[in-house]
Amino acid sequence: MNKRRISIEDIARRAGVSHSTVSRALRDNALISPKVREEIKRLAQEMSYVPNAIAQSLQNKRTNTIGVVVTSIADPFFAEVVEGIEKIARPAGLSVLLSASHRNFEQEMAAIDTFHRRRVDGILVADSRISKQHIKQLTQIAVPTVLINSQTEDQSEILHSVAIDDRLGAKLATEHLISLGHTAIGYLGVGDRSRSNQQRLEGYQMALTEAGIPPNTDWVSISDEYDTRTSDVNTGKNMLSKLLSAEVTGIFCYNDMVAVGALLACQELGILVPRNLSLVGFDGIALGSYVTPALTTVSQPMLEIGGYAMQMLLDLLEEKTVENRVLSPFLVERGSSAALLTI
Amino acid sequence: MNKRRISIEDIARRAGVSHSTVSRALRDNALISPKVREEIKRLAQEMSYVPNAIAQSLQNKRTNTIGVVVTSIADPFFAEVVEGIEKIARPAGLSVLLSASHRNFEQEMAAIDTFHRRRVDGILVADSRISKQHIKQLTQIAVPTVLINSQTEDQSEILHSVAIDDRLGAKLATEHLISLGHTAIGYLGVGDRSRSNQQRLEGYQMALTEAGIPPNTDWVSISDEYDTRTSDVNTGKNMLSKLLSAEVTGIFCYNDMVAVGALLACQELGILVPRNLSLVGFDGIALGSYVTPALTTVSQPMLEIGGYAMQMLLDLLEEKTVENRVLSPFLVERGSSAALLTI
Repeated sequence: MNKRRISIEDIARRAGVSHSTVSRALRDNALISPKVREEIKRLAQEMSYVPNAIAQSLQNKRTNTIGVVVTSIADPFFAEVVEGIEKIARPAGLSVLLSASHRNFEQEMAAIDTFHRRRVDGILVADSRISKQHIKQLTQIAVPTVLINSQTEDQSEILHSVAIDDRLGAKLATEHLISLGHTAIGYLGVGDRSRSNQQRLEGYQMALTEAGIPPNTDWVSISDEYDTRTSDVNTGKNMLSKLLSAEVTGIFCYNDMVAVGALLACQELGILVPRNLSLVGFDGIALGSYVTPALTTVSQPMLEIGGYAMQMLLDLLEEKTVENRVLSPFLVERGSSAALLTI
Repeated sequence: MNKRRISIEDIARRAGVSHSTVSRALRDNALISPKVREEIKRLAQEMSYVPNAIAQSLQNKRTNTIGVVVTSIADPFFAEVVEGIEKIARPAGLSVLLSASHRNFEQEMAAIDTFHRRRVDGILVADSRISKQHIKQLTQIAVPTVLINSQTEDQSEILHSVAIDDRLGAKLATEHLISLGHTAIGYLGVGDRSRSNQQRLEGYQMALTEAGIPPNTDWVSISDEYDTRTSDVNTGKNMLSKLLSAEVTGIFCYNDMVAVGALLACQELGILVPRNLSLVGFDGIALGSYVTPALTTVSQPMLEIGGYAMQMLLDLLEEKTVENRVLSPFLVERGSSAALLTI
């Protein structure tokens, strides 16, 4: 017997409804009542219906466009991540729509909303501030979404993500300073990046504890969590004094821009880096190797982070199973950190 | 007599053709023969037909998307320009599609081609390498296009542009060094940016000549014009030695990244900036104020350049008359330039 492929027509005939009703029901179109949708899906499964991928893709009306939300296009970290996204998106025939959130939750949601109205095939959000209730909203719309280095506390299982291991990175930075003989080590943090700042603080504390150094609250200086406007360079400049009063000899900074700010403040105050103070950054942006002295840093593979997130989106579009990725950063030793001078 | 608005139906009746034939002919649809299109357009004009803007906009199928081609998303100069573009595009309800050309003519054309297929409403191209024949091709497609700091020699009148005054900027930089007492002044250029490099060289020579200093070919060091892969920082590092042999005391660098490269090379060679050598950059990227010493530079208003180009595109979309803009850069004095030490 010649086993013919089951078509939508076959299901329509069995169910006694029209071709378009079946087609809509299988695509979960709201024009069809939930009850009928369930009934038709059950029937399709029973009849071993396999959807035609090409026809489905036409029905889906793919736009071959993906939307990317970054905090700021001019941020050197996210510029590298977007470069990594585009490198994978272009050969896959996908164009990249770009929007900036400026670390503002409303602007982030507005950008995502615009992307939905433009019928993008998928969305990548960097440094997301989406809350739990909005995650529900997002997942209902069913546009595949991947978060990059998200600041969201409740990492829902429904959302996909690529992230750096912040705790590990902070631990590497702090252990590096400890290995150089420093024991009074500060952390200069950025309050408005709630999740990554918290995790970097924890990694820092963990390294101290493991080395038998009791953490000291005077060694921690974190900018206001509601201050989303001060540039990271200014945060580094402004928040340094508290740590200097606490007489730390080494500082792990939230990121390279904060470390650059601390470095500039040291130059103004006549503090020699690394002779009087060692500084370690986080990110590994190119800028860090141009300042004097060049920054020791915990490097994130920025191009790869963008590339992995984009590849995850491509896999989701092909309905493959994907797993969230946590990438490991690595230490890059340069001139801004040195062995503690014993007098 | 009640003068009724002439509709497409009226023209169709007079011409003895269908509504859709008239509609297509007025939109220059290739399905209608050129002869019939001409005939119908003549008739429409004779009958004083005024197209309905809303209907036309629906027919035009505006996508409310613009395409932006930059050399590299991770280039801090273009990142600022794109930030300026998005600041104007977003409140106008336009989304930004971004693509990178990597200073490669083929990649630039491929990006523009993709934008055409995506039916963008307009295109912005930064650092364009489009040749004369391709400009013709572009203008035939009739998507409003604005070039930003174009490298195209033949600036066709058909294309629109926003550009910095490269000659003026170079003159300001060189005059600054002359005012500090320098007479042996070098130019460190980038050959693959043919037009802006040539104009900056001319501005430099102009300033020397006006000051009565005969230009000296030994004072000019320009990277290979076919080398599009070396980063500007490396160009600055590699091309410095020729100028040092020529014993210049001040150097005007093509841009800030080249100046950073020259600065790093000086640090390796033990040459003190500005004590032994003054350096002046071009662009005014944030990075220039983080290096030691901070760079004296000729600043381009990057956000404004992006904003003006985007506003020009909006004007073109509303069929307003626009005029090409040439913006003036300005000198920012910082630590990398100082008075010539007379021994």
